Amino acid sequence: MQLDHRYIVLAHGGGGQLTSDLIAQAILPALDNPVLAKLGDSAVLEFAGQRLAFTTDSYVVQPIEFPGGDIGRLAVCGTSNDLAMAGAEPLALSLALILEEGLEIATLQRIMASIAAAGSEANVRVVTGDTKVIERGRGDGMYITTSGVGRVLPEARLGYERIEPGDVILINGGIAEHGLTVMSRRKGLEFGSRLKSDAAPLAGLANQLVRELKDAVRLLRDPTRSGVAGVVAEIAGASGKSIELYEEQIPLTADARAAAEVLGLDPLTIANEGKFMAVVRADAAEQALAVMRSHPLGRQAAIIGRMTPETPALAELVTVIGGRRVVQMPYGEQLPRIC
Amino acid sequence: MQLDHRYIVLAHGGGGQLTSDLIAQAILPALDNPVLAKLGDSAVLEFAGQRLAFTTDSYVVQPIEFPGGDIGRLAVCGTSNDLAMAGAEPLALSLALILEEGLEIATLQRIMASIAAAGSEANVRVVTGDTKVIERGRGDGMYITTSGVGRVLPEARLGYERIEPGDVILINGGIAEHGLTVMSRRKGLEFGSRLKSDAAPLAGLANQLVRELKDAVRLLRDPTRSGVAGVVAEIAGASGKSIELYEEQIPLTADARAAAEVLGLDPLTIANEGKFMAVVRADAAEQALAVMRSHPLGRQAAIIGRMTPETPALAELVTVIGGRRVVQMPYGEQLPRIC
Repeated sequence: MQLDHRYIVLAHGGGGQLTSDLIAQAILPALDNPVLAKLGDSAVLEFAGQRLAFTTDSYVVQPIEFPGGDIGRLAVCGTSNDLAMAGAEPLALSLALILEEGLEIATLQRIMASIAAAGSEANVRVVTGDTKVIERGRGDGMYITTSGVGRVLPEARLGYERIEPGDVILINGGIAEHGLTVMSRRKGLEFGSRLKSDAAPLAGLANQLVRELKDAVRLLRDPTRSGVAGVVAEIAGASGKSIELYEEQIPLTADARAAAEVLGLDPLTIANEGKFMAVVRADAAEQALAVMRSHPLGRQAAIIGRMTPETPALAELVTVIGGRRVVQMPYGEQLPRIC
Repeated sequence: MQLDHRYIVLAHGGGGQLTSDLIAQAILPALDNPVLAKLGDSAVLEFAGQRLAFTTDSYVVQPIEFPGGDIGRLAVCGTSNDLAMAGAEPLALSLALILEEGLEIATLQRIMASIAAAGSEANVRVVTGDTKVIERGRGDGMYITTSGVGRVLPEARLGYERIEPGDVILINGGIAEHGLTVMSRRKGLEFGSRLKSDAAPLAGLANQLVRELKDAVRLLRDPTRSGVAGVVAEIAGASGKSIELYEEQIPLTADARAAAEVLGLDPLTIANEGKFMAVVRADAAEQALAVMRSHPLGRQAAIIGRMTPETPALAELVTVIGGRRVVQMPYGEQLPRIC
């Protein structure tokens, strides 16, 4: 296959189209196997007659501490959330640290305390780990890679192939807060003081949704890198069915809206770390909304879209003024080093 | 607890005493739990009535390609070997890449091909992954973090507490080759051309040993960072029993011996990536040796030591000329960025 680039560029890490291309062209061909090829948030394996979810993520966020969180909280939330999106209860995490020579040990200790606190919230523990040190100037303070294992709930029947026209799309609250917080912190913008990252462990709420709605839940996805836009573009592509999103239904705080305007960014493409989208059967939509709103992480939950029978399969946004535009997978990175 | 350092230094990543101190002082206190506290190569969890092994390692080796292997082969071997040391069959790996802007995509493709080849040898597949990109000058080509899950063999009953005086220690072949290869490559030393890394997947041999000898196998450990010295010091410390190693029995090629002399390094402290040590019940020692020698990765296997009833618990080397010296956990790093 013809590669578009000869060298890695930052945008290869943005989680958008260019990341997908890199994975498709330089990574998958070597490793090709049916579990990996699904490219879900987690792999699901058979183990002792049950379904085991297994996932990994590296965190390279800069700065490593920001309002509402830090690289450690991000790692614990991100990895346990990926398990939750596979319909799994998180069981255990691994923690691999790449530390840069010169990092203050007090900083490491703060991050470790944050990892522990996030683990308590997420009801999951770090059971194994590794520590490496690289020379000054070969890293950026610290990089963290967490992996996680979880037990897929027996009730969970999730998959793109289960999505049908008429299904409804929900989100558990306001979008774009994580990405805007980190970016505004980096730019030293004033409004940063009112925004904070939404980084939060979603497994409690996501597991409850699966337990109560059972197979009426078709798919769970968390809109991290590449945001809500990335998720809906992926759903349309993978399910072969169209999506309509209603802009006026998508929760967005005034602070986040203002920050996105100043930065010139589309909130739909910005990373979240404490939000997830659920595709549910139409007759279960109100129940799903009630379950979300009764949970502390879902007070602002909303129905934001639905699957439609239109062909070809596209994700479209119905704007506040009634216009329509296609929502595409962002091409490269909007915001490098956001997670 | 009083920390010896205020900042991270390279030696914190050497796998020796200073790494242990950092983990004990800055990492474990926050995360304290009984599974992690065992600090084994893998955590062992209960899942659906069976034992699930779970492990992680980051790889920061420099250069990323060297005689006998590369960072990708190292990652697959290292992580599947950690599962094997827990008495487990590797089931699946995760692969998290941190790529530096400017890395040649052709290099990434070579490493991916190497990962695939090592996965075939180790009979394990990459089932989930992640890709991040960092700015030029914030990394060093690429860092890889692999995690693995495996099924602990029903026959496996491994643990420091099972070790008894009289038990015998075996190794499956010549030591110090990985560390010396990488270091000589870095120094541009001539003898490098005859040495190559021993990086190899050990699960086939290690699993066979457990299946055939069952509970006569007391412990399996791979002498990676901090080498054979680190393993025996750890065994003495954790089991509370003494060890005698016989220098003249420890396999070491003439090339490796010469390289260690030129570099001024003790082969016992140098990293291996295709060797493991087995502590077995005395009456099973000959059978263990036969199993090892019948396997392609164990042709040079040898009995290199035994547990003794001496107190206090110490690891001692009986030298070729009949002297004795205490073998200690290396303090800091001998060879930075070796894995």
